[in-house]
Amino acid sequence: MDERWAERWSRRGRLAASADRPSRTPPEGIISFVYGDPDEPSLPLNEMAQAAEFLAEHERRDALGYQNPIRGDELNGALAEKLARDQGIEARPEQILITAGSSSGLGTICDALIDPGDTVLLDAPAWMGATMIFRLAGAEMIGIPIDEHGIDPDRVAAVLDRLEREGRRPKFLYTLPTFQNPAGVELSVERREALARLADERGLLIVEDDAYYELRFRGEYPPTIYSLAKPGNVLYCGTLSKTIAAGLRLGYIVGPELVVAALSRARVDSLRNSFSAALADWYLRTGKYSAHLDELRRIYQQKCDHMLRALEREMPDGVSWTKPNGGFFIWLTLPEGVSAPAILPECREIGVDFIPGPAFYADGSGERHLRLSYSAVTPEEIDKGIALLAQVVRRAMAGVAAARG
Amino acid sequence: MDERWAERWSRRGRLAASADRPSRTPPEGIISFVYGDPDEPSLPLNEMAQAAEFLAEHERRDALGYQNPIRGDELNGALAEKLARDQGIEARPEQILITAGSSSGLGTICDALIDPGDTVLLDAPAWMGATMIFRLAGAEMIGIPIDEHGIDPDRVAAVLDRLEREGRRPKFLYTLPTFQNPAGVELSVERREALARLADERGLLIVEDDAYYELRFRGEYPPTIYSLAKPGNVLYCGTLSKTIAAGLRLGYIVGPELVVAALSRARVDSLRNSFSAALADWYLRTGKYSAHLDELRRIYQQKCDHMLRALEREMPDGVSWTKPNGGFFIWLTLPEGVSAPAILPECREIGVDFIPGPAFYADGSGERHLRLSYSAVTPEEIDKGIALLAQVVRRAMAGVAAARG
Repeated sequence: MDERWAERWSRRGRLAASADRPSRTPPEGIISFVYGDPDEPSLPLNEMAQAAEFLAEHERRDALGYQNPIRGDELNGALAEKLARDQGIEARPEQILITAGSSSGLGTICDALIDPGDTVLLDAPAWMGATMIFRLAGAEMIGIPIDEHGIDPDRVAAVLDRLEREGRRPKFLYTLPTFQNPAGVELSVERREALARLADERGLLIVEDDAYYELRFRGEYPPTIYSLAKPGNVLYCGTLSKTIAAGLRLGYIVGPELVVAALSRARVDSLRNSFSAALADWYLRTGKYSAHLDELRRIYQQKCDHMLRALEREMPDGVSWTKPNGGFFIWLTLPEGVSAPAILPECREIGVDFIPGPAFYADGSGERHLRLSYSAVTPEEIDKGIALLAQVVRRAMAGVAAARG
Repeated sequence: MDERWAERWSRRGRLAASADRPSRTPPEGIISFVYGDPDEPSLPLNEMAQAAEFLAEHERRDALGYQNPIRGDELNGALAEKLARDQGIEARPEQILITAGSSSGLGTICDALIDPGDTVLLDAPAWMGATMIFRLAGAEMIGIPIDEHGIDPDRVAAVLDRLEREGRRPKFLYTLPTFQNPAGVELSVERREALARLADERGLLIVEDDAYYELRFRGEYPPTIYSLAKPGNVLYCGTLSKTIAAGLRLGYIVGPELVVAALSRARVDSLRNSFSAALADWYLRTGKYSAHLDELRRIYQQKCDHMLRALEREMPDGVSWTKPNGGFFIWLTLPEGVSAPAILPECREIGVDFIPGPAFYADGSGERHLRLSYSAVTPEEIDKGIALLAQVVRRAMAGVAAARG
């Protein structure tokens, strides 16, 4: 890029031009606990070919044309049934906006709600994609610490009080309550109720990102915050990326009909991928989806438990981690003095990769934490990778002890 | 939406909340010359099923996973070959950013380049999707009148001079040079060369939207502006929406490698639709694409010529229209005193629909013009719809004559 380009970027473009976003393709020979990619062998590729064959047989050429992202039929209808059955959410098809994955949905919400300088509350730690989206949107982020039961509504209320005294009002609270990314914890039922009350009483909009809700392999299904709050106080974001296929780019936002219609107009590229939508519609309606969900729960439980056993076996005292009931992630806490970013280069050198804590904090804190994703790796990779990680952690701990002398 | 929502929207969200965007589904029984939708019977639905079957046979589960929008292989590689063969553009796969349709591409360019208040030059009239995207981005639009040979580089230079005196610098010129939307005209070779010189000499970035380039059914293929200007002075936007299927949501931007990489980071949902990409890759590589292009050229020439004959037969003296060499659109000019927005309600009442001129002008002018799309209608619909339109035009002309008395 020559100097002409330096003058061409917008505020957002300058951020993007100077940003460094890692490739999704890990280098050869590295065990990657980095991305929350779905288990590859179980991806329903044959079923997608069957679905395409079905569309051809039934001359469904509409599946190759332009389609609005909000419709009364087809994928929106199948999702309305699924939301009622799997997520306890009552919504008409017209309340569902289909987005190009849930990150596109969150981008749409930011386009429609965030002006640069606006305030957003979010989990600390939070999904790094969300912090990237909010940063690009120019939002000022206030992270609210989560613990083993998720985000604490009392802390949220305290932040709201402080902001009110400063004459500020956050545009929304972004939270991922179920099998939190990155922490793997889930929000308790009491806290869900308290958050819903807070939304209703204080006029706080909650953006509930529930990407992993259906991937529970232990415990009871809690109510969604959406179903507990009054209409219009929660936008519910879901995705088929984890349960059918990320490559279809199908996410969705549920909210009041007029609100989601306005959201769809805030992005001009909101026309949905009609072919993906038709494939997913077929998959949902044939009942193959429900059977596939059961299979995925078994697969991820096995992987999660395998990683928990490996951590138990390999990690020295002083290292702790979360024990997820679902989802893709385990959150590790290192002993005082040991830094995840500091040990990462050595880990990569001997063949294991992860994302260090600071990537998940708006303020760049979280040095003693790291995220391990078990969704895309094999049991053998888990055993080998955790052993390598433990080896580096032990060395770093010995270094800390020696320095303390 | 209650009053809480009134406070929640951003600048862009307020625009979207108050906007009225027409549904893509026309009411029953209306002949619609409204949208540039592809001819439905020719959509390659069986071939997409074959492609999906091919992916299943070859266990291409990567086609269901997350994928970066810029790659060295697959769809990017097939597009690089196609660009060299069909469009005379030399580009490496890494210079091609896959977007969710070309509107998403233009949205990405705006995200990365436009801050609210920035100036954009564009065709007058221009594709209404572009004016909508620029309005949402907060751009100040300066329309530059086009004539039967497209946009006039001397007029562009004059606007640049004026802006320079005012201390302003446009972020880019957006132009659709080939089979212009809505006017159906094409930019002459001389003007292409002059625009490329202007870009090089004045540091003017040109965003060249070439959605219809391959759909030429008459005349010689001119060079693209991209191929005439120095690297980095033109971003070339293409799409597979018109030549394979709009429902796959596959557009692309070609530019310098570092620039398109930065563009891809300006939108967080830039991960491409892997499944669509794999289907299109197969279609391009099997050679079916080239044969399909030939078929499409025949189909659209027949439709265009059919509409031109109907206009010749039905329209009263004083009405004129463009004679396209390709693309989807004819641009009609009504006699003085007759307004396209004014006759639209009566047209709809008797069963024919179109888009009146003002939708295509940033300043809302263009009352005497209207766009007719011939791409999605049958010969019978063309005959009937043009006869109905002519009937209303004649009545309006009689009204004008009577008033002049």
